[in-house]
Amino acid sequence: MKALVFKGPGQKELADCPKPVITQPTDAIVKMVKSTICGTDLHILKGDVPAVTPGRILGHEGIGIVEEIGSAVSNFKKGEKVLISCVTSCGKCDNCKKQLYAHCTDGGWILGHLIDGTQAEYVRIPHADNSLYHLKNDVDEEGAVMLSDILPTGFEIGVLNGKVNPGDTVAIIGAGPVGFAALLTAQFFAPAKIIMVDLDQQRLELSRGFGATDLVNSSDGNVIENIKKIAGPEGVDVAIEAVGIPATFDICQKILKPGAHLANVGVHGKPVELHIEELWIRNVTITTGLVCTSTTPMLLKNVESKRLKPEKLVSHRFDFADMMQAYEVFGNAAREKAMKVIINFN
Amino acid sequence: MKALVFKGPGQKELADCPKPVITQPTDAIVKMVKSTICGTDLHILKGDVPAVTPGRILGHEGIGIVEEIGSAVSNFKKGEKVLISCVTSCGKCDNCKKQLYAHCTDGGWILGHLIDGTQAEYVRIPHADNSLYHLKNDVDEEGAVMLSDILPTGFEIGVLNGKVNPGDTVAIIGAGPVGFAALLTAQFFAPAKIIMVDLDQQRLELSRGFGATDLVNSSDGNVIENIKKIAGPEGVDVAIEAVGIPATFDICQKILKPGAHLANVGVHGKPVELHIEELWIRNVTITTGLVCTSTTPMLLKNVESKRLKPEKLVSHRFDFADMMQAYEVFGNAAREKAMKVIINFN
Repeated sequence: MKALVFKGPGQKELADCPKPVITQPTDAIVKMVKSTICGTDLHILKGDVPAVTPGRILGHEGIGIVEEIGSAVSNFKKGEKVLISCVTSCGKCDNCKKQLYAHCTDGGWILGHLIDGTQAEYVRIPHADNSLYHLKNDVDEEGAVMLSDILPTGFEIGVLNGKVNPGDTVAIIGAGPVGFAALLTAQFFAPAKIIMVDLDQQRLELSRGFGATDLVNSSDGNVIENIKKIAGPEGVDVAIEAVGIPATFDICQKILKPGAHLANVGVHGKPVELHIEELWIRNVTITTGLVCTSTTPMLLKNVESKRLKPEKLVSHRFDFADMMQAYEVFGNAAREKAMKVIINFN
Repeated sequence: MKALVFKGPGQKELADCPKPVITQPTDAIVKMVKSTICGTDLHILKGDVPAVTPGRILGHEGIGIVEEIGSAVSNFKKGEKVLISCVTSCGKCDNCKKQLYAHCTDGGWILGHLIDGTQAEYVRIPHADNSLYHLKNDVDEEGAVMLSDILPTGFEIGVLNGKVNPGDTVAIIGAGPVGFAALLTAQFFAPAKIIMVDLDQQRLELSRGFGATDLVNSSDGNVIENIKKIAGPEGVDVAIEAVGIPATFDICQKILKPGAHLANVGVHGKPVELHIEELWIRNVTITTGLVCTSTTPMLLKNVESKRLKPEKLVSHRFDFADMMQAYEVFGNAAREKAMKVIINFN
């Protein structure tokens, strides 16, 4: 089969690889139908994730058709259409029993990281009963692909951790795919204002159509002041960090009203300076996390009912044969005006 | 009347001051019976709290007898014995309506800070109906003084923010009065282990009698490793920071298991380096806060029933006339083997 293979920092190849086989009774083999590329895949390609070794097939998102199941799989049958979760969970370790699936001791985020992933014609999914979801035929397939990672990530790590409540003022720093996922799902809880903050005016304008009530372009040097002009002098109720660099974390910590929540979603490569000499007295809560995908079934219901239309996040589509070009476009998202790309398999 | 007056950084005096008078209908004047000294008072004397100006009477803790009430006070009468809360709350601003009394827009921590405090023969208490509590005659008076600040601080900002649960492993960094308050009140929630961490072996040994199950002396250079020997390699469920310096915050952030809580109670004067490049993926929660004293009535019930005996924290007693000596002892707590000092008025 063909697969997108990491060949070491800066190098990747659409290569011929052996088709995966069942190795555990709890495995399923899935024939891919659609996949996508994640910002995390770009991090891996830069060499930022040393656990990913050369030869690894990338990708942790997508939908497909069950091709084969292990003897212990009981929730799924050959031929069924499934959503693949970016997080694999055994369902029986201490962390799984606390719904902390991201830290499953025999799973977590392993696809396209510690085991071969979904940017391939076939993928092996361990603990299939807990890591796949049935996909009805009338569900928008491109929308469903967004449920593998970015929708639950924006919702769980941004909106739920941030404790968005009706009437709140929410600032989302970073108008990328995960920031947009937080923007879409924050609206479940009827905040009064959602302020979108980014350097890219075009993405900011786009966010209006997704429900942003106010826009702040952070390139003008007065970002804190401009956010407080909208939120009020005390600051916001919830700040969602969806970038992963010190400058954006810093914006978040400086706009928190007393009692506010800072939900960090961004993947960080460097420490940040935490201004605890100011924050110790402000009764704030700062959260971090890898998505647990415990809300995937709920989000899927909202996609089925068309209350949530994450397919709106898709800006480009490619055949799997053109995977290298898809990376080129997604890797230059600002220039290409790209948000999420869909990869179609035959 | 006599009062302990801040005269500028490094200077204080037991001086003659005018007796306070009712200035608002919601005020009460309280004749002090017992007070104490807080670590925060030492910070003020060092000059770390610039909002405190020379001439200010210090102190935000104590019990007393109502001497006089304003025309709008309805919960209290002259002659009643009362507990004074370190936090003043109007009960009607937006923050008070969220139980965020620490950030009351006409109160918060103002006693001995922005208005004259309790280290005086008489004190004016604004918003008396919301800022005083009735004290029964058979309640231990020294224990009651601990309810003004340190007990609710350790409980709300350490134990409740840290979400201590039955079976948890809790580490408390800092075996001072607030660390001991967290130690006492963490036991409401039946954690499996409470690890006390400090440089002072004598305070550590003392903590056993208050319920600590394990002790780690942090002077030996292997503090992280020694905590994990007790907690397990993944770390603790809850880390409570009760010191307020970068080194102790750093211990806390390095012992968090996935899903853990770091409850910062310490008053910090400097930023800290937050290792978000490691923590982003660990689903942790970091909280800060000034006590809201919303749990004072509950804690008072536990003191009344003798389930909680905070009077055990008292190591020294002084007459108010010897206030300068009390500061000398409390300011050299390690040398003097001091925990909390009680100031008795005549």
